[in-house]
Amino acid sequence: MRKEGRLIRWVWWILLVTALFLLGFIIGWFAKPSHTNKEDHKASNEYLKELLDEIQADRIREHLRKYTRLPHLAGTEQNLKYAEQIKEEWQKFGLDSVEMVPYDVLLSYPNKSQPNHISIVDQLGNEVFVTSLAEPVPQGYEDVTDIVPPYSAFSAKGHPEGDMVYVNYGRTEDFLQLEREMGINVTGKIVIVRYGKIFRGNKVKNAMSAGAKGIIMFSDPADYWATGVQPYPDGWNLPGGGAQRGNVLNLNGAGDPLTPGYPAKEYTYRFSMEEGVGLPDIPVHPIGFSDAIQLLKNMGGVIPPNNWKGALNVSYRIGPGFTDEFKSQKVRMNIYSNNQITRIYNVIGKIRGALEPDRYVILGGHRDAWVFGGIDPMSGAAVVHETVRSAGLLLGKGWRPRRSIIFASWDAEEFGLLGSTEWAEDNARLLQQRAVAYINADSGIEGMYTLRVDCTPSLHTLVYDITKQIASPEDGEEGVSLYESWHKRDNWTDDRDAPRISKLGSGSDFEAYFIRLGIAAGRARYTKDKKTERYSSYPVYHSVYETFEIVEQFYDPSFRRLRAVAQVRGGLTFQLANSQLLPLDANEYADALRKYAQSIAQLAEKNPDEMVMYDVSFDSLFSAVQNFTVAARDFHERLKNLNRDDPLQMRLVNDQPMYLERAFIDPLGLPGRPFYRHVIFAPSSHNKYAGESFPGIYDALFDIQNSPNPKKAWQEVKRQISIAAFTVHAAAMTLTPPA
Amino acid sequence: MRKEGRLIRWVWWILLVTALFLLGFIIGWFAKPSHTNKEDHKASNEYLKELLDEIQADRIREHLRKYTRLPHLAGTEQNLKYAEQIKEEWQKFGLDSVEMVPYDVLLSYPNKSQPNHISIVDQLGNEVFVTSLAEPVPQGYEDVTDIVPPYSAFSAKGHPEGDMVYVNYGRTEDFLQLEREMGINVTGKIVIVRYGKIFRGNKVKNAMSAGAKGIIMFSDPADYWATGVQPYPDGWNLPGGGAQRGNVLNLNGAGDPLTPGYPAKEYTYRFSMEEGVGLPDIPVHPIGFSDAIQLLKNMGGVIPPNNWKGALNVSYRIGPGFTDEFKSQKVRMNIYSNNQITRIYNVIGKIRGALEPDRYVILGGHRDAWVFGGIDPMSGAAVVHETVRSAGLLLGKGWRPRRSIIFASWDAEEFGLLGSTEWAEDNARLLQQRAVAYINADSGIEGMYTLRVDCTPSLHTLVYDITKQIASPEDGEEGVSLYESWHKRDNWTDDRDAPRISKLGSGSDFEAYFIRLGIAAGRARYTKDKKTERYSSYPVYHSVYETFEIVEQFYDPSFRRLRAVAQVRGGLTFQLANSQLLPLDANEYADALRKYAQSIAQLAEKNPDEMVMYDVSFDSLFSAVQNFTVAARDFHERLKNLNRDDPLQMRLVNDQPMYLERAFIDPLGLPGRPFYRHVIFAPSSHNKYAGESFPGIYDALFDIQNSPNPKKAWQEVKRQISIAAFTVHAAAMTLTPPA
Repeated sequence: MRKEGRLIRWVWWILLVTALFLLGFIIGWFAKPSHTNKEDHKASNEYLKELLDEIQADRIREHLRKYTRLPHLAGTEQNLKYAEQIKEEWQKFGLDSVEMVPYDVLLSYPNKSQPNHISIVDQLGNEVFVTSLAEPVPQGYEDVTDIVPPYSAFSAKGHPEGDMVYVNYGRTEDFLQLEREMGINVTGKIVIVRYGKIFRGNKVKNAMSAGAKGIIMFSDPADYWATGVQPYPDGWNLPGGGAQRGNVLNLNGAGDPLTPGYPAKEYTYRFSMEEGVGLPDIPVHPIGFSDAIQLLKNMGGVIPPNNWKGALNVSYRIGPGFTDEFKSQKVRMNIYSNNQITRIYNVIGKIRGALEPDRYVILGGHRDAWVFGGIDPMSGAAVVHETVRSAGLLLGKGWRPRRSIIFASWDAEEFGLLGSTEWAEDNARLLQQRAVAYINADSGIEGMYTLRVDCTPSLHTLVYDITKQIASPEDGEEGVSLYESWHKRDNWTDDRDAPRISKLGSGSDFEAYFIRLGIAAGRARYTKDKKTERYSSYPVYHSVYETFEIVEQFYDPSFRRLRAVAQVRGGLTFQLANSQLLPLDANEYADALRKYAQSIAQLAEKNPDEMVMYDVSFDSLFSAVQNFTVAARDFHERLKNLNRDDPLQMRLVNDQPMYLERAFIDPLGLPGRPFYRHVIFAPSSHNKYAGESFPGIYDALFDIQNSPNPKKAWQEVKRQISIAAFTVHAAAMTLTPPA
Repeated sequence: MRKEGRLIRWVWWILLVTALFLLGFIIGWFAKPSHTNKEDHKASNEYLKELLDEIQADRIREHLRKYTRLPHLAGTEQNLKYAEQIKEEWQKFGLDSVEMVPYDVLLSYPNKSQPNHISIVDQLGNEVFVTSLAEPVPQGYEDVTDIVPPYSAFSAKGHPEGDMVYVNYGRTEDFLQLEREMGINVTGKIVIVRYGKIFRGNKVKNAMSAGAKGIIMFSDPADYWATGVQPYPDGWNLPGGGAQRGNVLNLNGAGDPLTPGYPAKEYTYRFSMEEGVGLPDIPVHPIGFSDAIQLLKNMGGVIPPNNWKGALNVSYRIGPGFTDEFKSQKVRMNIYSNNQITRIYNVIGKIRGALEPDRYVILGGHRDAWVFGGIDPMSGAAVVHETVRSAGLLLGKGWRPRRSIIFASWDAEEFGLLGSTEWAEDNARLLQQRAVAYINADSGIEGMYTLRVDCTPSLHTLVYDITKQIASPEDGEEGVSLYESWHKRDNWTDDRDAPRISKLGSGSDFEAYFIRLGIAAGRARYTKDKKTERYSSYPVYHSVYETFEIVEQFYDPSFRRLRAVAQVRGGLTFQLANSQLLPLDANEYADALRKYAQSIAQLAEKNPDEMVMYDVSFDSLFSAVQNFTVAARDFHERLKNLNRDDPLQMRLVNDQPMYLERAFIDPLGLPGRPFYRHVIFAPSSHNKYAGESFPGIYDALFDIQNSPNPKKAWQEVKRQISIAAFTVHAAAMTLTPPA
């Protein structure tokens, strides 16, 4: 019995010892942290909510008020002061680092002592009419100095004199119609065109190609006037004395005209002015419609087709020159602007990523403005500013994003996207290797109707997700999400039942990041109702009337629309920087590619005989798209079985969609445009503003109508189809298992 | 007492329980594996040793024997058969996957029914002399069919007839001397030059530029004959009837001439023959020295400078044409070769990486040969074959490398690096994102003296490390390492006390990987003693006498030299694929850059007056190199404090030196050479074989002597210095902390 008792006691002992050991072991095992940093989804979502909630309408109003008091043209002291102020405030908001990054780029300014103007001169050489030298200054800004008068930046100097020819919008097709149907040659003439439809630089290029010796651009009410709206300050329409400033370069993504491909640093070699990229060699000047009436009213020559007529009370006769009565009068351009190498400043702020500091999400927009920049760009810059403030608050609470975030206040966007492009050139290697996405922040608002998003297809899903988490800013839509509000107003109709998202074109700072470097990009702003509002951009675009007040009184009195835009831009940035699994959707890219392929094939099919004669087929492209579709689907399937605890595997898997956008880059560039390298998205050669899909094929098809050698032109179409097919195949490869 | 006893007992109990729990906790803590995959250094080193030990000289002999029995020119059935055989064997060796990857590229073959030849014709048009139609076939190969006679691949067809002019090696400086000092114009003449010094394609280009209507190239004993050595089969010298085949393209890295920039797939658009890249438009033909004597012996004209004289018993008079006695005789080239689009096959074998399958280390070399390829390339291909066998054995033992390894047997290298370049084009995106290094495996042996390594500076340290772990293959050097043996024979003299490592030039398959894509690259082979052996490459180069026997009897009877080469190539590949921390040394790159900057500045300083006149300075370049040096040093300092248990941190840190080489790529390419994009290393425009450092600056300086506009030429020098400085700065950025 004793023996037995002892045995039992021993058994108990052993059991106890084992149990205690096991307990310790188990606690020890689980107490040890895994080396992975498993995302706390809940925490991340709470931080996102906090970021969005912290973005305040009143703060955006304050920021906008603060940064629109004075003109701050690129290269001026005031724009540097604003840069310094932004830098200081970003530092105060709590960013890890903020620096000023200068470049010395070619800018263009009017000559202060010899104002640019256009005159009508009689046969004695007397000026019988002179266009206005400045816009009437809006109330409250009478004492402001340094308002640059309307001008065409980078215009050639000169005094061409002669007869005018009116060429509608100055598009390629307008010049073709002029020459072929109307038989009018503009060689040695001064061309006058209305603003709108295409980028002004393309108009200038077309005028040069046609042989014009000068070009005048005017804002026609047909294109810059909203029905039933008063001109500023009583409404938001363009007054007759207002005119559209703007650069007239044909850079095709080159950045600083004198240092294409390289950042414009102190030591950088600069081309001479003659060698510079995209500089026009004829004088160019913009005018408002009050002046345009004076120039056009006595025009003689042919009566124009109806679609060449604007809304002014003139005949829109084509010319050349005036009616017989005024035949002796000529038009003279008097352009004294100077190109000069000038220092500009980007402000770059950073938040270091906690786990993947070498992955960058960029939120950037420009700061320089033609005058006050009430809409363009400060309505967007104020939004970025508020996003930085909100992110800084989160940092203070201990949050740190998984990846690094870079905030940028670009300079000299108005002079050809110079600040953003130089920085992209400076950092091209790092960006190519490390950039996850670029969110653009130009004007936050250009209308009062609903949201507008242009982005790469892989961001579609994230845009929808994030807008579902944001409230509609519209009155009477309490409890309605931005997504629903947007969806209701702008459905994607034929294609799908969802809010419309458009392709990226160009004309803002995402260009170098998206079209040259192949970084997934997107932009968001509030916009007009395209179905009913037919004017180009917004009426006061690039005029002195872009004030704080126009936003406060008309576009967004409550600043809730800009708040919603801030939440979209900030939310996209946050999710891209913070999600453990990158929220990029390759299936959306596949769908988009299929749509684009069908649409470009349809365009080609308008020439069925030539398609047969030259053996042109889109089969290789469709086959590539099919291949891509399967690769994308399989990629997303594999994500379902991902071990999220394995940090290396997560990194590998995230690299695939990150580099997907990069895969669409052709290092050789599009024909004749070495800095436009995205095979899927780029502006057409005929209009920088319009983003075309498969731009290489599109341009080749466009050129067929002009080509003297159709066989060669169709060979180029075939070559472009082949390049597109290869590129889509190559992009598909980046989504397949890596080995 | 009892109470006390109880207390003590309780204390004991508590201590015991705590101790047991703690013990359990501690064991539990340490028993739990970290989620990182800490490298087992010891195991890795043992596997390396095993890989190296398993590489057997006799096996290399077997492989070489097996793959040199029959001619296997690119595009022939026999070369496809070898490809299939290699594929099967690699599968048997145990690779995870092996595939054949075909492309349809432009090749060039003699016309079988109309043999190419050169004739001397008398005034009646009778052929008084005709060059040999084939080389005497070596013993043992008499029954072999399909030996392609010596020809210049891609020569234009044609029958130019006229006077010859002898232009030494046909270098740029030879033509300049001919025109400027001797006053001889070769327009409409047939140029005859000796092989050697520069790539034959450059000779052809120079002849074309000078206006020649044909070019003949001959092997002079001065350049293809080793003193005291018998001609094959009694020794390894070139017999008089032997001649050097070779392509005469000027591709500058384009790959297939008809599909530059894109892989030559079935659907790929092809340029017409007229638009093709680098195709000569004059006839070209190679001859041996027996024939050369007949062509040269009656040459008239000026007596040449001494350094234009070769070792033949002729006067080497310049011409044009023959001496008075033979004045009526002309030379006629009769070239009937055809260019034709032909299917070629790469064999691609893979080992999937265990932890980072999306990081690639490539060991590639070509399989196609002009005839048997005893040296070029099969001595190298046999080495790769044996490396694959050895790696396969390791796989069988449970080893798997950290990163993926890709083995490649390229096709059509002899026709312009076509197989490797098309595959690089096909996979450019993946390679740019994922490739760690490319190890090249052309001929394993070209001499009997010591090791020769050409590689990027960041591989220097690894090359030294690995050669210290390999035994010298030389007789009487038991116990001596390959490093010591090599060091003793070829010290880096002035620069440093270590074995010499040279820059990569071009002329083999690493070109697209290194110079176009910026992937760290290196090559290793056994070589001659450059101090005493002055002939070009090796005497029988590209002749029918490159047999198995020449290797077995003369170059490497024990096959221990090839074994050592296999160990170097295999060891480099293994370490790059398996090391937890990538063995790439940025400090070596910094040292190299400093040396190159000094040397290019010295070259410029030969024109001190112009340097002042045109304000040319290298300060920006030196400053960039200094910046790079600091960044490299700091990078390696930071490595010392690395947490090797953190897999994400390891990945981040490894990405930096991996992308360092990529950072030297200028997407715009070198001037006029879009596919040569490496700013630090590329062949000069005047000799594809010579790797120049800062090739952009070098070429700009070279061009000064020819330029009609010195100011413009010096501006180009300045531009190139600026590009080089920027590129070095940009590369430095990739080494700094990422945010």
